[in-house]
Amino acid sequence: MRLKLPRGFRYAAVYAGIRKRKKNDLGLIVSDLPAAAAAVFTTNRVQAAPVRLARRHLRESGGVARAILANAGNANCATRTGDRVALASCLALARRLKIPVREVLPASTGVIGVELPGRLILDAIPALCARLKHGRFAEVARAILTTDTTHKTAAAEMALSGGTVRIAGMTKGAGMIHPRMATTLAFLVTDASLAPAALRAMLREATESSYHRLSVDGDTSTNDMAAILANGASGIRPAGRDRTIFGEALAKVMEELASQIAGDGEGARKRITILVSGARSVEDAARMARAIANSPLVKTAIAGADPNWGRILSAAGSAGVALDPSRVDISLQNVTVCRGGLAASFSEKELKGKLAARECLIRFAIRGPGRASARFWTCDLTEDYIRINASYRT
Amino acid sequence: MRLKLPRGFRYAAVYAGIRKRKKNDLGLIVSDLPAAAAAVFTTNRVQAAPVRLARRHLRESGGVARAILANAGNANCATRTGDRVALASCLALARRLKIPVREVLPASTGVIGVELPGRLILDAIPALCARLKHGRFAEVARAILTTDTTHKTAAAEMALSGGTVRIAGMTKGAGMIHPRMATTLAFLVTDASLAPAALRAMLREATESSYHRLSVDGDTSTNDMAAILANGASGIRPAGRDRTIFGEALAKVMEELASQIAGDGEGARKRITILVSGARSVEDAARMARAIANSPLVKTAIAGADPNWGRILSAAGSAGVALDPSRVDISLQNVTVCRGGLAASFSEKELKGKLAARECLIRFAIRGPGRASARFWTCDLTEDYIRINASYRT
Repeated sequence: MRLKLPRGFRYAAVYAGIRKRKKNDLGLIVSDLPAAAAAVFTTNRVQAAPVRLARRHLRESGGVARAILANAGNANCATRTGDRVALASCLALARRLKIPVREVLPASTGVIGVELPGRLILDAIPALCARLKHGRFAEVARAILTTDTTHKTAAAEMALSGGTVRIAGMTKGAGMIHPRMATTLAFLVTDASLAPAALRAMLREATESSYHRLSVDGDTSTNDMAAILANGASGIRPAGRDRTIFGEALAKVMEELASQIAGDGEGARKRITILVSGARSVEDAARMARAIANSPLVKTAIAGADPNWGRILSAAGSAGVALDPSRVDISLQNVTVCRGGLAASFSEKELKGKLAARECLIRFAIRGPGRASARFWTCDLTEDYIRINASYRT
Repeated sequence: MRLKLPRGFRYAAVYAGIRKRKKNDLGLIVSDLPAAAAAVFTTNRVQAAPVRLARRHLRESGGVARAILANAGNANCATRTGDRVALASCLALARRLKIPVREVLPASTGVIGVELPGRLILDAIPALCARLKHGRFAEVARAILTTDTTHKTAAAEMALSGGTVRIAGMTKGAGMIHPRMATTLAFLVTDASLAPAALRAMLREATESSYHRLSVDGDTSTNDMAAILANGASGIRPAGRDRTIFGEALAKVMEELASQIAGDGEGARKRITILVSGARSVEDAARMARAIANSPLVKTAIAGADPNWGRILSAAGSAGVALDPSRVDISLQNVTVCRGGLAASFSEKELKGKLAARECLIRFAIRGPGRASARFWTCDLTEDYIRINASYRT
């Protein structure tokens, strides 16, 4: 897909030597103009140095940023020199770009508890900045990957009353993925003109329906961060109805990114979309959907193309939400397998065939009186997840 | 191990034809005298028919029971005929044993959502009762197994002021194991004389330090039940200090059973014991221990003998408990791998060798000011878990 990118941003990536394998590991996004900036961060009590520093920079700048500097291969978390390295990297970049250091947002992803050699980043910054002239959006999206098998981007263009505005986003997976905001890294850029507070509110809302509805393995990372820069290069400031349109487009881009992460979960062969409906509140619906998504028994059944709906019912029942099983209908790939909490009759062989697809849909419908629903993404659990994670560091 | 069994109980198991494989699938425990009875049940909102009926029988009898009737191979959950089949089975047994039906506690384990053919149980009851004359404790323990690779029993004998009292217990695993009381099935018998209320209180307390500290895969079953019968055949009624001794012995038996389940988790090659100390409350300690135990990344790292302590720190950080990482020390197999939230120096090669053992110990010590601690059991996550669960029904 050829992305229509927001105006006024430049991109660069280089290999700084942080990963063992020679593959770009340092990415940079720069806005030509000071941009309104907002971010959401992990709620893990253990937070990486770049998470703490990015939070501080956003506070000190009042929500203005010019650059996002991200490395893969090392999380810079639980490290002696973590704060120093994160700050030194931002300082070196700020000096080079002639911008205040508080307008640089740092981010890291990779192994926890191993010192990040700051020298590697400092040495790479001249080449990184030189690359800004020709660098591409997708090369940054590739530089931030860890165990991902493919890079993940999404974009939107919308015609507002004053003209056209664009949003583009990139993200990475693929393990330690559980939505306690934000999961993983996500960087979004837009050429709309928005105040930091408005941007923050829209990012939070879009996060709810996207990254908060995503789980690969139920592990919440120490480095999660979703950040957005709005540089106003389009000259358009969405207001009123336009703001609603913009917010919806942002949510759609983030949902697209989140669902790409689910599809590329570690070892995953299938993306699973879970739709819970008829709950008393969106929160209840999301809790049941999350319980289904986090059930290793459901995920292994899908891996084996086994329509074992009893596990789905059981998982939802353990979500801590009031539930009357006799009001529950469950379908897999739109084939009803459970009606009123009991087995429905279906062709097991035919359904097994349908469950071999790369996309799996679980519908969990409660027959009223509630009307709230939620969508959630996850992936199947395969032997490859084990293989990848039994020897991640080695 | 030759168990010293409590006096006044008889045991039997037969093959009723519920499992496909010809292996006993119906077990019975009978007390010669009416016994005080107590039980704890799953908190899943989806509850199997035998769970509902056992609860009702306990209520109706005021905590008195004579028999536990348990089948494997079918959970009798989310089934059209579930209540009818559970009741008919209890009635047939009660008639045969000439006891009130409310003194029979039913239990089932196996696949969810498939009708349990009641006829199979009714037809087997004469043979089952005939077998009571020669049946053994261990044969019931074997009859209730599903994906377990071995049967699980534990026992205690204690000298109280009035004489000797015995406790014996059996349990089963091995998947859908997550402690929201009780996990799996556990049946305990004792020849002590205790009032139902006292028995209930002791069972609840013992459950806290045993089954509530156990996780295989984080999935809470619909059929969980731990029941104890105290028939007084020893003639001894523990009171005062004796009651404390008895309660501790009960907890120890149940802890032994819970830890056996962890060691035989589906696909497990290692039992993992997690000790969290220095927390502000036992609940906080247990929450962090549970988060570590439920982390697939920690469990796969242990499977791969990889001392990836960053995942342990990250998992504890996501438990929703206040935590200052700089006060955390982590050791694996008593080798310190993290000190004050940072990497400690250790021989990776030597530790990898130690982590190849069947027993793995994770210590997560917070340096005050809290003094509370908790122990938790789980197992490693291997490819075999996936293999077993991708085709459980087929």
